[in-house]
Amino acid sequence: MVTMTEQKAIKGELLTLEAMSTVEIATILEEAARFADGKEWKVKKELFIANLFFEPSTRTRYSFEVAEKSLGLHVLSFSEESSSVQKGETLLDTVKTFEAIGANALVIRHPENDYYHHIREKLSIPIINGGDGSGHHPTQSLLDLLTIQQEFKSFSGLNIVIVGDLRHSRVARSNAEVLTRLGAKVKIAGPKDWMAGYEQSYEYVDLDNELPKADVVMLLRIQHERHDGKMSFTKESYHQKFGLTMERETTMKDKAIILHPAPVNRDVELASELVECERSRIFKQMSNGVAVRKAVVKRALEQY
Amino acid sequence: MVTMTEQKAIKGELLTLEAMSTVEIATILEEAARFADGKEWKVKKELFIANLFFEPSTRTRYSFEVAEKSLGLHVLSFSEESSSVQKGETLLDTVKTFEAIGANALVIRHPENDYYHHIREKLSIPIINGGDGSGHHPTQSLLDLLTIQQEFKSFSGLNIVIVGDLRHSRVARSNAEVLTRLGAKVKIAGPKDWMAGYEQSYEYVDLDNELPKADVVMLLRIQHERHDGKMSFTKESYHQKFGLTMERETTMKDKAIILHPAPVNRDVELASELVECERSRIFKQMSNGVAVRKAVVKRALEQY
Amino acid sequence: MVTMTEQKAIKGELLTLEAMSTVEIATILEEAARFADGKEWKVKKELFIANLFFEPSTRTRYSFEVAEKSLGLHVLSFSEESSSVQKGETLLDTVKTFEAIGANALVIRHPENDYYHHIREKLSIPIINGGDGSGHHPTQSLLDLLTIQQEFKSFSGLNIVIVGDLRHSRVARSNAEVLTRLGAKVKIAGPKDWMAGYEQSYEYVDLDNELPKADVVMLLRIQHERHDGKMSFTKESYHQKFGLTMERETTMKDKAIILHPAPVNRDVELASELVECERSRIFKQMSNGVAVRKAVVKRALEQY
Repeated sequence: MVTMTEQKAIKGELLTLEAMSTVEIATILEEAARFADGKEWKVKKELFIANLFFEPSTRTRYSFEVAEKSLGLHVLSFSEESSSVQKGETLLDTVKTFEAIGANALVIRHPENDYYHHIREKLSIPIINGGDGSGHHPTQSLLDLLTIQQEFKSFSGLNIVIVGDLRHSRVARSNAEVLTRLGAKVKIAGPKDWMAGYEQSYEYVDLDNELPKADVVMLLRIQHERHDGKMSFTKESYHQKFGLTMERETTMKDKAIILHPAPVNRDVELASELVECERSRIFKQMSNGVAVRKAVVKRALEQY
Repeated sequence: MVTMTEQKAIKGELLTLEAMSTVEIATILEEAARFADGKEWKVKKELFIANLFFEPSTRTRYSFEVAEKSLGLHVLSFSEESSSVQKGETLLDTVKTFEAIGANALVIRHPENDYYHHIREKLSIPIINGGDGSGHHPTQSLLDLLTIQQEFKSFSGLNIVIVGDLRHSRVARSNAEVLTRLGAKVKIAGPKDWMAGYEQSYEYVDLDNELPKADVVMLLRIQHERHDGKMSFTKESYHQKFGLTMERETTMKDKAIILHPAPVNRDVELASELVECERSRIFKQMSNGVAVRKAVVKRALEQY
Repeated sequence: MVTMTEQKAIKGELLTLEAMSTVEIATILEEAARFADGKEWKVKKELFIANLFFEPSTRTRYSFEVAEKSLGLHVLSFSEESSSVQKGETLLDTVKTFEAIGANALVIRHPENDYYHHIREKLSIPIINGGDGSGHHPTQSLLDLLTIQQEFKSFSGLNIVIVGDLRHSRVARSNAEVLTRLGAKVKIAGPKDWMAGYEQSYEYVDLDNELPKADVVMLLRIQHERHDGKMSFTKESYHQKFGLTMERETTMKDKAIILHPAPVNRDVELASELVECERSRIFKQMSNGVAVRKAVVKRALEQY
């Protein structure tokens, strides 16, 4: 594990939350909260941002685009399919191209973990990490944090249980680490062999025992596309054993909330009806995603 | 067949023309005519519209985009290929995502008939139907209507013949129904087994007999992609039997016009040279498509 | 070979440099130089430009988009994959559609040589050629010229060697022809059988002999995708025989520069380290590409 803090930071970049102090994180969350409350802010001059997506995405891609256009930016929207990546161009050459033609910042999603290590030192514009492999997804973590903060004001002492496919998740790790730093008690639940790398640091709990105590139930999407068909559960049996069923939901505390990064596998991670239930903050998370991305993009571009 | 009028209408939505009164249709056409004549109108505040295309499209997609950008909207342009639909996300979850991140209206094209029935009641923003399966395509119908109205002022008493692949067409049904309501005499021509569902309501005519009487010849595109290779005609024999050949065109009335929704199969539905002939309104239809879509999008967004 | 000068010119179109006088070329380069120096210019009214890309592209596509958005245009961004080309629509019908829905100019990249001959006479809006097959790529040539001009002020008497895959290149031909017209001495180097069509007009030289004399070394990309796997070299042996190795670079003149249209095959056409070396103008070429495209798009739209 390389920590960014050892390296020269590029002004405005956002690669992982682990590399950030709690003060920095709190500052972004405050700005995001202002945007969520209706703050308007526009860039002072014409600036370009390029969204480079090397993996499919709906939520992340379009909430960045809404944020960017709201801030008055010109947006270049790049997908791998119709690009020179088809001619074998490397990631470094692609990002250097966008820098050369005038992009003032880059949002990148890429299937490779830590893809930015190869390229950030060769760029003079900031990268905002839109998700790397099974590594990090800092704006997703920030929107989870914002959603929890809106609900409970403080993270201190909150019981948070992260449920499901932790091993393949790019938010579980950052969320667990940062929430712990912020004072929450993070526990984990789900199939035992999906907990690899977490059991040393976080208490593994039985979901049924934990639910009556949890303030936040953070469900993770089963990443079928990363399991190579090797899943040992049917959807139904996963739902019964580890999913948030209608029945389990009734055991939750009064003010407890449900988070899920989406897209949801309905009736797998949670019962389909619970997606729109009163406890669910799933669509609130998406709206908060725009506010968080406004804060993050503003931070990246204030230098110009 | 479900009619929209039985259900709560969402302000500004446009799903089918069948669900609309002739007064409503006339109102949209008047507004569209003003846009066609150069009217300019901009939204008063920053608004987002998302174009969600689950099928390939050039005309519909880009004429919506021209209309939207002319009206001052921010446009989110979504194609299935590079989205989370690849991860199995449902249509409902996709549209709820766009609502959550700030879209004020949605334009949707989808291969499934009546796709909107599953989703409209769960949204608080209007859907503009950009075409559903072999169901409806209301903005295409409206631009056909506008083109006819520009030519003949009134629909009353016009002889209109719809020729070709009615069964697979998503405009034939609405056009026939609405034009009849507006006072035109609609007849149908083409291969007999492509008329299923129409023969009870509309007179089946021989094209050669009808052409000297018709005011409007509305040719439909043969949807090769929906025939599963089961077409019993060669292109040449279709053209000879049911196409608008150079020879047939000479029998048309002085002021009669030719419509086609495009893309045209040249030398199949009509002789290639006729695409650009004096009677052809095919490119006029496309320009009118922008005017109609401006009217429809304005109608969807005036509420904000 | 058809020359454009025999035909009616459409105001503002840019198809090939061969069709242009040196005065016209100089005029565009002067305007481009002003844009490179920070000139700002906006269109006076709302105009649309459509970028129609029938082949993958990163540099050309996005530098046009940056140029267009900087000039205040609305941009329609079209890729073949999600269009009606999938339904068999012809190029002519696609471009006529964009004209009909309001595009004021078209930028087109297409795999077919001279694709514009079929369509330009049927359009009333200018085409800017963004690259045709192995034919022409005038904005790439112009950005090469701008880059050379910035360095040496005049082309007169410059020694320029074009190295590599000339046969498949769409810039080699225009560059050689135009640079010669502008007074430069153009020579060619690389595998003998890749020089077909050039040896009559340009001196074939040995790279090692030529490098100490050259002012500009113009490397061409090996177009693996156009060689159908029939290449008789390994990458390593090509690099040793015809590539700009670290060793060869040391023999170059003090002020000599390296050009490459990119994407670079690192360690094939040139040593990877040389891409970012002091002589390299590869990223400068990309920035100049935006300036050139601003000049070319302004020229196409001044008529409105």
